[in-house]
Amino acid sequence: MSDLWRDPHLSPEARVADLMAQMTMAEKVAQLTGIWWIDPAAGGMAPMLSESLGPQPPWQEVVADGLGQLTRTYGTGPLEPREGMEILAQRQRDVMAGNRFGIPAQAHEECLTGLAVWRATIYPAPLSWAASFDPGLVERMANRIGTTMRRLDIHQGLAPVLDVVRDHRWGRVEETLGEDPFLVGLVGSAYIRGLEGAGIVSTLKHFVGYSASRAARNLAPVSMGPREMADVMLPPFEMALRAGARSVMNSYTDIDGVPAAADPALFTDLLRDRLGFTGTVAADYFSVAFLHTLHGVAGSLGEAARLALEAGIDVELPSLNAFGEPLLAAIETGEVDEKVIDRALSRVLLQKCELGLLDPGWAPAEPEDVDLDDPESRALALELAQRSVVLLANDGTLPLAAGAPIAVVGPRADTFQAMLGCYSFPMHVLVHHPGVEPGVEIRTVREALADSFDVTYELGCPVVGGDDAEIEAAVAAAAAAEVCVVVLGDEAGLFGNGTSGEGNDVAMLDLPGRQEELLEAVLGTGTPVVAVLLVGRPYDLSRQADRLAGLVCGFFPGEEGAQAIADVLSGRVNPSGRLPVSFPGAGSTQPSTYLASTLGRRTEVSVVDPTALYPFGHGLSYAAATWGEVSTSAPRWDTDGACELVVQLANEADRDVSEVVQVYLHDRSASVVRPVQRLIGAARVDLAPGERKEVCFELHADLTSFTGRELVRVVEPGEVELWVGASSADIRAVLALDLVGPGREVGADRVLEPSVTVVPT
Amino acid sequence: MSDLWRDPHLSPEARVADLMAQMTMAEKVAQLTGIWWIDPAAGGMAPMLSESLGPQPPWQEVVADGLGQLTRTYGTGPLEPREGMEILAQRQRDVMAGNRFGIPAQAHEECLTGLAVWRATIYPAPLSWAASFDPGLVERMANRIGTTMRRLDIHQGLAPVLDVVRDHRWGRVEETLGEDPFLVGLVGSAYIRGLEGAGIVSTLKHFVGYSASRAARNLAPVSMGPREMADVMLPPFEMALRAGARSVMNSYTDIDGVPAAADPALFTDLLRDRLGFTGTVAADYFSVAFLHTLHGVAGSLGEAARLALEAGIDVELPSLNAFGEPLLAAIETGEVDEKVIDRALSRVLLQKCELGLLDPGWAPAEPEDVDLDDPESRALALELAQRSVVLLANDGTLPLAAGAPIAVVGPRADTFQAMLGCYSFPMHVLVHHPGVEPGVEIRTVREALADSFDVTYELGCPVVGGDDAEIEAAVAAAAAAEVCVVVLGDEAGLFGNGTSGEGNDVAMLDLPGRQEELLEAVLGTGTPVVAVLLVGRPYDLSRQADRLAGLVCGFFPGEEGAQAIADVLSGRVNPSGRLPVSFPGAGSTQPSTYLASTLGRRTEVSVVDPTALYPFGHGLSYAAATWGEVSTSAPRWDTDGACELVVQLANEADRDVSEVVQVYLHDRSASVVRPVQRLIGAARVDLAPGERKEVCFELHADLTSFTGRELVRVVEPGEVELWVGASSADIRAVLALDLVGPGREVGADRVLEPSVTVVPT
Repeated sequence: MSDLWRDPHLSPEARVADLMAQMTMAEKVAQLTGIWWIDPAAGGMAPMLSESLGPQPPWQEVVADGLGQLTRTYGTGPLEPREGMEILAQRQRDVMAGNRFGIPAQAHEECLTGLAVWRATIYPAPLSWAASFDPGLVERMANRIGTTMRRLDIHQGLAPVLDVVRDHRWGRVEETLGEDPFLVGLVGSAYIRGLEGAGIVSTLKHFVGYSASRAARNLAPVSMGPREMADVMLPPFEMALRAGARSVMNSYTDIDGVPAAADPALFTDLLRDRLGFTGTVAADYFSVAFLHTLHGVAGSLGEAARLALEAGIDVELPSLNAFGEPLLAAIETGEVDEKVIDRALSRVLLQKCELGLLDPGWAPAEPEDVDLDDPESRALALELAQRSVVLLANDGTLPLAAGAPIAVVGPRADTFQAMLGCYSFPMHVLVHHPGVEPGVEIRTVREALADSFDVTYELGCPVVGGDDAEIEAAVAAAAAAEVCVVVLGDEAGLFGNGTSGEGNDVAMLDLPGRQEELLEAVLGTGTPVVAVLLVGRPYDLSRQADRLAGLVCGFFPGEEGAQAIADVLSGRVNPSGRLPVSFPGAGSTQPSTYLASTLGRRTEVSVVDPTALYPFGHGLSYAAATWGEVSTSAPRWDTDGACELVVQLANEADRDVSEVVQVYLHDRSASVVRPVQRLIGAARVDLAPGERKEVCFELHADLTSFTGRELVRVVEPGEVELWVGASSADIRAVLALDLVGPGREVGADRVLEPSVTVVPT
Repeated sequence: MSDLWRDPHLSPEARVADLMAQMTMAEKVAQLTGIWWIDPAAGGMAPMLSESLGPQPPWQEVVADGLGQLTRTYGTGPLEPREGMEILAQRQRDVMAGNRFGIPAQAHEECLTGLAVWRATIYPAPLSWAASFDPGLVERMANRIGTTMRRLDIHQGLAPVLDVVRDHRWGRVEETLGEDPFLVGLVGSAYIRGLEGAGIVSTLKHFVGYSASRAARNLAPVSMGPREMADVMLPPFEMALRAGARSVMNSYTDIDGVPAAADPALFTDLLRDRLGFTGTVAADYFSVAFLHTLHGVAGSLGEAARLALEAGIDVELPSLNAFGEPLLAAIETGEVDEKVIDRALSRVLLQKCELGLLDPGWAPAEPEDVDLDDPESRALALELAQRSVVLLANDGTLPLAAGAPIAVVGPRADTFQAMLGCYSFPMHVLVHHPGVEPGVEIRTVREALADSFDVTYELGCPVVGGDDAEIEAAVAAAAAAEVCVVVLGDEAGLFGNGTSGEGNDVAMLDLPGRQEELLEAVLGTGTPVVAVLLVGRPYDLSRQADRLAGLVCGFFPGEEGAQAIADVLSGRVNPSGRLPVSFPGAGSTQPSTYLASTLGRRTEVSVVDPTALYPFGHGLSYAAATWGEVSTSAPRWDTDGACELVVQLANEADRDVSEVVQVYLHDRSASVVRPVQRLIGAARVDLAPGERKEVCFELHADLTSFTGRELVRVVEPGEVELWVGASSADIRAVLALDLVGPGREVGADRVLEPSVTVVPT
């Protein structure tokens, strides 16, 4: 047996080639699998998951020929960090002992709202990151998450989610970065830089199209043509790959009849050949088997394995359903070409090599006590929460006067769960461990408000259900108070647990349960009502909006979320978040987002008006920046050149302000139908009192490109406009520009974002 | 000037070539236009229409160089037939006098629910034709419509609508033939055979994709890939072209960013080159200008004209907005190639030649008094209505005992408008002529029921709005009666007039206005409640369904609709209609139709359950056929051969019965995701008491074909099942078949429908 592959001085390619040449087929295939091995003693699991996992093979069998990945060793049950490290180390020793080469597994965990492990910091959910419009802060957060993961000997994190929201009814909206591809890419790639910068393999989810599932039903078919796919769904992934993401996960859905997991056009032609991706493609959980059981494009699990491998899926997670015995049998009969095995294997081993897992002397980290929720992490969670809370409406009632007697009511007022997204450990896992405490300190809005106000509290109603007496009690409390703060929203969860999250799709955007009734009831008292939403998706507030004294929205703002809400209500923090998703108007219908062409918006040819109540990019502050001149370097914009856009901002208020300058492109006429406006630049600018800043966007003409008639991406000459504003509907300047020069085809190396500089003036 | 083109002994091509060689550009372009010329004296129009039409050019200018088409000379205002004939004849004389060649215009009218002209028979709306599952009867109706049109010197009818329903919220659902492509094609081509058989040019609407507009909002963008387009949207058009349709109209929408009206891939590559269509393509009203004003793919009206002509649109309707001065100017500057003018012109003139409009001595018909609603037409309208009413549910209360004291309540109980679709003359036009009577006798449900029952009547509430007192009065009437018949539903209309019809899209499938409240109120009395729906789309009855004594649905059943409803309620007619659209269940959401893959239906991965309350193909009878053996000729089915399916039926009841045998294909596994089931055959079978019949379907393997991975249509070998039943959910037999032989690519000449024979046994 050659040991060349152990030599760190050789190239990774040479090492992997040496190793592969020595492996049996069983050893090769074992590297393409990952398993969620659940110790029967470890306690409950979601029933659906148990069903999909099927009977667990004996552990010794799992590791007999090696193992590609270990799934969620920490994230499956409430383990102390040291305990988790011990289990992982033992499993790694077993894996290494099980195969002739002593290769350990790549360990992955979920990390969407922070590492999804007991006692780890729970950050705001992704919609909040997007609402902050603050990629730098998101990068810091992700780096901190990654650093914790490295310490725990974890190699890969299954985040971020780059699906562009197309329908607000979808349960997974809370996991996304909103409805604009540029914003998703901007914030998503910041997260990736942070995580990868800590040495963790980030995983782009879900390639591609998942969020457009029909009627927003999880996993339902996607009706979409190649142009919308290229112009709406793909750009965030392009930005993310440039940010250094090393793994990609497939979408569960089929697009126009072809399941992503079985589509070589996606995973080979596009992702590898065109976009140059060299990392690994991991199958979303159970999605290889789904090719047989749900999509019906494979007649057997062996055929499902073949289709996935041929498409370019490298690793099956988190079971051996298809890449186990069925694949081995299909190789035996010659149905599966060994070349596709070797192709996947080389990618898997190159990544392991890169991670040091093939190096001599690699050993699991020594178990130790680790604080996964240190003060620095909590501070970061607070800062992001504070910058992501969105003030949607305010008649002047906010901020509330310190010490005011307020009634705090509503199902989300006095529960820490209101702060947490569906991939947080408590909502994802602890729901199956009743009685176990969340593992980190999470205050409730009621508790945080009690620091500054004279609070009376009533539940009003639960998230779903409730009785009249509870509502009446809330009404009495509201009637007796100076202001009523009603805290409404979602409980995050999965597949029927909760009202938002994976599988928790909805048919309508009405607030869950009796919450609208509660809101009407407290409004009926005449006491000014400030509504606080803690939600995973936008809801229809159109029937109450004009009667609210104030409306504040937090998208599952994390373990420090209650503090952030209280900071905003009390005025300690000047609210500065901006909506990454539109809030529906009175006549709204789905699917509908701001990213629409003229006929996708209100017209006279339909009585249904999709105009948003609160548009994309909207968010108020107690004090705002003063806008000065907005100008471009020239009225001409070369089709292969850059245009410079300069925005002057000043803070004439007596407190810190923060503006999110939003640059939208409006194409007057093009060879194909274009959205009325789309974001091509955004910059968050903080200004101290008296400060002035100049924001400069260098906008390359590539940013105007789109997929033309011939299905190639082009810059077309002609008249365009830059709409520069404080929201998609609050446009402060319209600058007409003439794109001049020849029409140009742009390649995969096109400019994807402007360079932005902010300088004091 | 040569007169060869007048010679009927020459070939049409030679005649047209001769004529074209002599025409000036202005004369050529004039033949490509059609105008809705409205005499200012003729009275009101829909304001939106006036706006789109713009200022009317002087009549002499319109006809100065000839004119391609005359739009709705009869159908614009309430004219007596003779009066209409006089106006048309005068206009034709003007048109002929205006151009050097004396060529008359091609006259078109709407004819979707019968000729849309005052005093003409109003037949049931298309959803009712589909509900009848009776193509023979629909063909007879269309032939009768066509015969009337010929008599009035009309050449072309703008029907049928072949859009396959994808979202029940769309306002135009009532104009369609439902949610299954095969059923749409089967019934649609019957209509075409009838109309074309009478010498009228039928017009296929809308090529293609319109019904998939985003969120069902009229004209909104369509997200769809080529496979869904080919397998769901196109088949009805393929069947219709074989039935002899001579004109096609474009869809207003864009598909994946390319407006149909500007897409040569649709109108040239597909329609002409692949499907062999040689007739004319007429632009849907204003859609050429919309390329500039709404889609933004043309920078000017001249460019819009060029794009449309290049795509393959031959005639602009019903204004000269783009094909008038803007086109002439664009030709002048060389922007528009004369070849595309000549291409369109030759098609237009060939059709005129075919219609005899180039023949020597052609003259307008002599005006005369014509009965447009003769007894035979009324009888046909009644027969179709009777066969289209669907009995959705019955606890045994129906049929009602003769003479019973019944309360008849509800907004649709005592208004003739409840019978009429949005393209009927009263709902389409008379809404702008208040006080003018409908022109034909149309009874109300209340009136028809009063023939057989002791009726008390209360309104309950209007279609939209209403007050508590009206509901209370209805409750009182219901409480005092033996049975309460509550007649609910839509008012058809356009663009904000009414609740169903063009532009009247909805956000939710709740009954309009306070109708659900009314229904609950009468249910609260304890009196058995029979609900009668007169609707243009399915509505959500899931909250009341299990408390109803009976539920009957008519899809705007036409001028004899009230009689048909009364016939069904009284039991004079054994109900036999079947649903061409699903009725939503409690958790339903849109878009969703029965034509869905496994993941498009209920699964455990989403809490939203789209299962229908009443599925596609459902319909009860008071007495039903008895099913005998269901068998196939062999368990093997050659991939290039036919399989014979035989169904034995008997009538063991003491009255006439009618069964709709429905044959669905289930593909166990295929190279792309397939619907769980799709209709590939249907036969309506009438049986007298004691009668037995054998229904034989010869099913060619082409019927199993679909668009495969390579985007070509293929028959794939493998296991399939025939699900044979009385509805999509009431499957009486499952027959497994093995498709054997090589996979085959099938061409545009593929078999599109089974041959069906029904013989007494």
